[in-house]
Amino acid sequence: MSFRIEHDTIGEIEVPADKFWAAQTERSRQNFPVGKEKMPIEVIVAFAHLKKATAIVNNDLGKLSSVKKDAIVFACEKIIARELDEHFPLVVWQTGSGTQSNMNVNEVVSFVANQYLKDQGSDEVVHPNDDVNKSQSSNDTYPTAMYVALNQAVNHQLIPALENLHGTFSKQVEEYKDIIKIGRTHLQDATPVTLGQEISGWAYMLEKSKEMIEQSKKQLENLAIGGTAVGTGLNAHPEFGDRVAAQISKQTGLNFVSSPNKFHALSSYDEVVYVHGALKALAADLMKIANDVRWLASGPRAGLAEIEIPSNEPGSSIMPGKVNPTQSEMLTMVVAQVFGNDTAVSFGASQGNFELNVFKPVILFNTLQSIYLLSDGMNTFNDKCAVGIKPIHENIDRFLNNSLMLVTALNPHIGYENAAKIAKNAHAKGITLKESALDSGLLTEAQYDEWIRPEDMIHSKE
Amino acid sequence: MSFRIEHDTIGEIEVPADKFWAAQTERSRQNFPVGKEKMPIEVIVAFAHLKKATAIVNNDLGKLSSVKKDAIVFACEKIIARELDEHFPLVVWQTGSGTQSNMNVNEVVSFVANQYLKDQGSDEVVHPNDDVNKSQSSNDTYPTAMYVALNQAVNHQLIPALENLHGTFSKQVEEYKDIIKIGRTHLQDATPVTLGQEISGWAYMLEKSKEMIEQSKKQLENLAIGGTAVGTGLNAHPEFGDRVAAQISKQTGLNFVSSPNKFHALSSYDEVVYVHGALKALAADLMKIANDVRWLASGPRAGLAEIEIPSNEPGSSIMPGKVNPTQSEMLTMVVAQVFGNDTAVSFGASQGNFELNVFKPVILFNTLQSIYLLSDGMNTFNDKCAVGIKPIHENIDRFLNNSLMLVTALNPHIGYENAAKIAKNAHAKGITLKESALDSGLLTEAQYDEWIRPEDMIHSKE
Amino acid sequence: MSFRIEHDTIGEIEVPADKFWAAQTERSRQNFPVGKEKMPIEVIVAFAHLKKATAIVNNDLGKLSSVKKDAIVFACEKIIARELDEHFPLVVWQTGSGTQSNMNVNEVVSFVANQYLKDQGSDEVVHPNDDVNKSQSSNDTYPTAMYVALNQAVNHQLIPALENLHGTFSKQVEEYKDIIKIGRTHLQDATPVTLGQEISGWAYMLEKSKEMIEQSKKQLENLAIGGTAVGTGLNAHPEFGDRVAAQISKQTGLNFVSSPNKFHALSSYDEVVYVHGALKALAADLMKIANDVRWLASGPRAGLAEIEIPSNEPGSSIMPGKVNPTQSEMLTMVVAQVFGNDTAVSFGASQGNFELNVFKPVILFNTLQSIYLLSDGMNTFNDKCAVGIKPIHENIDRFLNNSLMLVTALNPHIGYENAAKIAKNAHAKGITLKESALDSGLLTEAQYDEWIRPEDMIHSKE
Amino acid sequence: MSFRIEHDTIGEIEVPADKFWAAQTERSRQNFPVGKEKMPIEVIVAFAHLKKATAIVNNDLGKLSSVKKDAIVFACEKIIARELDEHFPLVVWQTGSGTQSNMNVNEVVSFVANQYLKDQGSDEVVHPNDDVNKSQSSNDTYPTAMYVALNQAVNHQLIPALENLHGTFSKQVEEYKDIIKIGRTHLQDATPVTLGQEISGWAYMLEKSKEMIEQSKKQLENLAIGGTAVGTGLNAHPEFGDRVAAQISKQTGLNFVSSPNKFHALSSYDEVVYVHGALKALAADLMKIANDVRWLASGPRAGLAEIEIPSNEPGSSIMPGKVNPTQSEMLTMVVAQVFGNDTAVSFGASQGNFELNVFKPVILFNTLQSIYLLSDGMNTFNDKCAVGIKPIHENIDRFLNNSLMLVTALNPHIGYENAAKIAKNAHAKGITLKESALDSGLLTEAQYDEWIRPEDMIHSKE
Repeated sequence: MSFRIEHDTIGEIEVPADKFWAAQTERSRQNFPVGKEKMPIEVIVAFAHLKKATAIVNNDLGKLSSVKKDAIVFACEKIIARELDEHFPLVVWQTGSGTQSNMNVNEVVSFVANQYLKDQGSDEVVHPNDDVNKSQSSNDTYPTAMYVALNQAVNHQLIPALENLHGTFSKQVEEYKDIIKIGRTHLQDATPVTLGQEISGWAYMLEKSKEMIEQSKKQLENLAIGGTAVGTGLNAHPEFGDRVAAQISKQTGLNFVSSPNKFHALSSYDEVVYVHGALKALAADLMKIANDVRWLASGPRAGLAEIEIPSNEPGSSIMPGKVNPTQSEMLTMVVAQVFGNDTAVSFGASQGNFELNVFKPVILFNTLQSIYLLSDGMNTFNDKCAVGIKPIHENIDRFLNNSLMLVTALNPHIGYENAAKIAKNAHAKGITLKESALDSGLLTEAQYDEWIRPEDMIHSKE
Repeated sequence: MSFRIEHDTIGEIEVPADKFWAAQTERSRQNFPVGKEKMPIEVIVAFAHLKKATAIVNNDLGKLSSVKKDAIVFACEKIIARELDEHFPLVVWQTGSGTQSNMNVNEVVSFVANQYLKDQGSDEVVHPNDDVNKSQSSNDTYPTAMYVALNQAVNHQLIPALENLHGTFSKQVEEYKDIIKIGRTHLQDATPVTLGQEISGWAYMLEKSKEMIEQSKKQLENLAIGGTAVGTGLNAHPEFGDRVAAQISKQTGLNFVSSPNKFHALSSYDEVVYVHGALKALAADLMKIANDVRWLASGPRAGLAEIEIPSNEPGSSIMPGKVNPTQSEMLTMVVAQVFGNDTAVSFGASQGNFELNVFKPVILFNTLQSIYLLSDGMNTFNDKCAVGIKPIHENIDRFLNNSLMLVTALNPHIGYENAAKIAKNAHAKGITLKESALDSGLLTEAQYDEWIRPEDMIHSKE
Repeated sequence: MSFRIEHDTIGEIEVPADKFWAAQTERSRQNFPVGKEKMPIEVIVAFAHLKKATAIVNNDLGKLSSVKKDAIVFACEKIIARELDEHFPLVVWQTGSGTQSNMNVNEVVSFVANQYLKDQGSDEVVHPNDDVNKSQSSNDTYPTAMYVALNQAVNHQLIPALENLHGTFSKQVEEYKDIIKIGRTHLQDATPVTLGQEISGWAYMLEKSKEMIEQSKKQLENLAIGGTAVGTGLNAHPEFGDRVAAQISKQTGLNFVSSPNKFHALSSYDEVVYVHGALKALAADLMKIANDVRWLASGPRAGLAEIEIPSNEPGSSIMPGKVNPTQSEMLTMVVAQVFGNDTAVSFGASQGNFELNVFKPVILFNTLQSIYLLSDGMNTFNDKCAVGIKPIHENIDRFLNNSLMLVTALNPHIGYENAAKIAKNAHAKGITLKESALDSGLLTEAQYDEWIRPEDMIHSKE
Repeated sequence: MSFRIEHDTIGEIEVPADKFWAAQTERSRQNFPVGKEKMPIEVIVAFAHLKKATAIVNNDLGKLSSVKKDAIVFACEKIIARELDEHFPLVVWQTGSGTQSNMNVNEVVSFVANQYLKDQGSDEVVHPNDDVNKSQSSNDTYPTAMYVALNQAVNHQLIPALENLHGTFSKQVEEYKDIIKIGRTHLQDATPVTLGQEISGWAYMLEKSKEMIEQSKKQLENLAIGGTAVGTGLNAHPEFGDRVAAQISKQTGLNFVSSPNKFHALSSYDEVVYVHGALKALAADLMKIANDVRWLASGPRAGLAEIEIPSNEPGSSIMPGKVNPTQSEMLTMVVAQVFGNDTAVSFGASQGNFELNVFKPVILFNTLQSIYLLSDGMNTFNDKCAVGIKPIHENIDRFLNNSLMLVTALNPHIGYENAAKIAKNAHAKGITLKESALDSGLLTEAQYDEWIRPEDMIHSKE
């Protein structure tokens, strides 16, 4: 393995010859041999968008030559195109400001920019701090890159996945709107619903979650850029933050603005806690949906077995022919992870001091993981399970017809207490509700047939 | 102790003679001797609003006589006026639908209503289920009462408390806008800020949190009422939900609507998870604020001691004359509790099955506690601590003047690396920054005095 | 309302004339109008044990007169006898060291002791700090009282409740050891188990949990007493800690020692986090048990209905005759709370600084609540539900006999893949396993009858 | 890319020609494109230990030929030697029983074993289910592999890392035992301690944590193996579990036994919740230690600056010469992650049903990550920070000498209230404690000098 010598304000250090990073990245690599969790590439790409934008804005403001600007933009675009992934070796578990990842980007960008300049025959030299990081600090760039990366992930991964699964359920709401089945509350038999109504509850959960995610994600549009080291904007032009936010918006097609208070932007991630609350609300709903699906599909012969779901793989290494609700299991494990991530995010967010919060990488890492897992989880659950949900009519009908809770329809006619007696008598004697009702002498067979009709029990009535 | 006999569909049971509840409340009391946490009175009051509204609407719809309606309204108003608190003995740890608290309300309302009717010489008799609970189920009334209670608490307690503390900080932002002090990042000396700027970060956290709470609390305006047992609205009039929501809005002065999907309203509390996420974001901010305050006030002689806070009580039972930042400690313990409550709420919200979630009381209990603790905590912290924050000029000035990080102002003039050398040299030799700068030969004294001016370092510049 | 004037080092203050507390308690009452959660009386009682013990030890060491000692002991015993509860008005949300509750105890003890001395005609006067708090600081007394209170709660409440429920299940393991039923994995039909075996899993969970709780609670035997203000033991005799721990052991009948490192004892509650981990492990098990119970009891006609549980109350305010698994619901809500409390406890435990952790009251409050809720929850679940679990033979037998997973017994004879074909064929055609097996031509009827015997499938075999 | 055709009980499927897995692995790969988190290689290695052990035991019991046994052992050893990592492509987010990873191991082992047999000229063929999985089910093998992997990680990674950091602090306890410094409680100046005493608190935290981890990890010695599909041991020999546990113990040098109740072993992970509680207790301590270190090192000129820590890298991309406590930041982010993981683990552990818990992979993944992050975090924090902690005598002495809390030494001489007056007067007037004491007329200079001696205030006294 061959090396080249790089230096920073601490001194000289050997760096692998074939890698584009320099001294500060190398120091972090050596000083933080912790875990396997890399700084997510999504935040590196977001950094590249930012560095491109700052170069353009610094040039516009007369602070960076056009030659350097072009070189920096060239390098950033290579990162965005994911051609340089191998040059970002750092892990999440580094300095809590993300300084080392900011410097990793500054170093790689200046390395590539300088190669470009050399190729162009230019004698200008791009400096990682003085040029690529001009008018910036890690303290405002890292949270800016965080918010750009999170917004991209929410918009491009999560919302489409939500819509995907919602679309499937919406179709089934319509398709199964006439299948009357037993309702269940407290896991006990209750009054009837249609399968379409039951699924409409799931669909509406996703609709609500989407609304809450879309509402909350706007909070991530406020970028820290322009705050520099402590929020004052020292060494930056007064218009720098606004211009860079506008430029990033242009580059990404998403909406960003410069945060109105940079002291907040560097030290508080209340917005991420809030957004993760919306992610957790979605996770709680997915838990309920995945559980309903696997319970309704339980059996085949000793469960509820009201629906059938696709058989994707052998379910057991010992029980031949067993098929399990594995997509539900995957999704509920994702939920467990999102719940855990929420704890990590809010713990980190609570620990800021003075002008800085130094739990940024762990906040970013967990939030991004939640978004990706929820997105992948919903897409896969949709494609491999939800789309294939089919009613098992025979079981649905049997449960409905045996139900004692149809008695509820008698309340307005004979009162709650009389109705209760009929149901309890049927249960005690193991007879049908109708038999018990006639036994009671409180109503005639004709009245029973008129009053107890499942199809009239699935909606309100004047 | 004397008793009277009450009955329900299970049979007869003795009830304390001086209490207004009946059989089902008594059963719950005996069946759930668990913990000391009462079903919060706020949700009982919300139930009274609901029962009053349903009586009025049932009467409007021709389903309840005006005599009964008046009697029910009479009883509900007594509950709202907090005259009947002792008749609601049940604990949080009961059935997960809150059925028993719904029945407690139904029973007490009918008891009081029937006394009223007897006093009026009427021979009508109000029945807890057939009249007070008419067109309703615990499954739609309990979540309705939850959301009414939570909305009232957020609007009447939390928002005013937030505004209160925000108002204090806003004044200080202005008052202390010219006090230049050292900034701190990573707990290390950084470039200067004003005390007003530092406090503006706190003020903006509260502004953000308020915005997020106001945004998210709208989700709690969707009431389950009208869904009855399983969400279908069985035994209710189609307009029942809308009319009751409108009537509650009128009674409470807050805005409510009937949820567009009742299957969701009975089985998912994604909205509460989301709102609690906003509460947790506020809590994370309060942690940061309370920590900043106590660190800035640390000392008096071996700490930062940049601010003074009120001395409210002797701080130590052994160290005479000690004064501690007790309001910060109270507030950070509240934060710990809110973080815990968030875990409980989301766990509960994830565990719904089919047509019902049976973790409602624990969800309500924790969310309401979070709101009350945050409200009381902020009000008390404001009144007993924040309003009394005063700068200690002597220490502020000493720290500022000794700081090495003023060197950052040299970056645009001599570059990052040269500036670093000057700072490191000053640190190593224990000399002032100016001495080190002149040592370096990179700038003149005149340049130093022109370039390094704290008052120019607290804002961006063209 | 009448008042008397009290004073402390801050100055004078009015105190309600009929209350025994003095200035510092009153200040806390006025300075912390936060929430409704009182400092738990259990920790006040533990404080009384401690103050009694310290008086005795200080007297033994020649630091406190016998007259004062007797008076202090007299007062402490009244607190222990729960005669003075009303004199402890403070809330959890106070100073994080619990100083104010320590002073509340010191003040009430000295008040009562001084009345006693006056009654005795003595002219000695007990001082809250100089006598009752002699050789102590809040910093070592509060954690001492915490650990005493927690140990008492674990030993006197939790362990008996665990044994209670374990005893019930142990009996059922024996009673139902011959009832063969279908096993379920992934909610899907699996190979058979006996009902006794299934319940033995629950019983063993409780056994394990008890073992882990007993193992971990030993960590709470290390008392901080003797550390005084910062852990050095300043102003205390070198034997003070050991002697007080021995005296408390004698008084309470539980085992306590003085912590070997007082700097740890004042600033780290790792032991409580660990114990709460064991409580959470129990909670996780109770969630599983309560869920199993309610699922096995689901129905009555559209669920699994393999067991019957007691009908304790009407289950629905709208559906007549409905009976719900309310004890399971209570217990699972308790689990949600314990999970939340765990988050609060560990957050608090992580936030110590230097010589002190100032999250003690919130740590104590949540841990004690977890212990009480788990204890009450298990006792109630046991008495009102578990003891009444009965098999429903008809359903158990039907599910067993229909099961396709009996096919697993063929693996050793015809191999996994052939066995799978038989099961899948039976499922596809809706025929019995035997019919499908014979269809396959892979075995004879005699072989089928010999190989597939549920009673041979519930244990390993040579 | 070229493929070969594999089949399972679902049918045929194309598998990459150069990979050793077969149909079921491939199905999982295609059915679960979720996240980037691979099933940890440590659990795959543990599986290899298990499959080797089961082959040996099955052979001993006369159920597997020696030829097959040797081939299986050969394959397992290659996995253990980490030569086959690329053949384990599955992610965490799969079926919750881990069946697919069990089958991945079964398939790769049989593939390699069959190559080996072919090379040997044998015509025996190893089958993934009938041979490699003989006498086993995923339901008992996955938790067995979990516990083996966790035990190895705790023993080989975590305990040594704990001892490493503990060793460093232990040395400093001795080295700095005579450096008297100010103590701090509530962040406020308190009575003195030595630096050695302060560090002894950290050392004892690690000692305690180690004790709790060692105590709790014994719970992970109970292996599920022998339970097969539902805990009954169907298709296994009665001695199978015990023999395999003994064989694994022999192979790994760690102690394992077969769990006394397999129904528990398949459905409850209370032991992991408990162990993770001990990990969280350690994490809470590390938070406190890392915070103390960075606060004591805060400055260099506007902080406490009582200690110096190594400068490992440039601290700021904008502030030249800045050095930050990055190792503390790394470690506190690890703590945040461990706190989050704890939530995920206990959520998963609470969700078992009947004979199985299907959250095993998420439980394993988070617990293993916690162990590795804590281990790496402590090692790195030790090597790059803790070993270099040095006192800054000048600041330590200044703080000590200015302190007002030395007044506490006067309590036994002049009483708490008089002492308080002296301290408050000194604070109000900004004078020294001695000046104020003499002012008070309560003691002479000689008494002051005798009574107030920091070196006498750092320990108890007769």
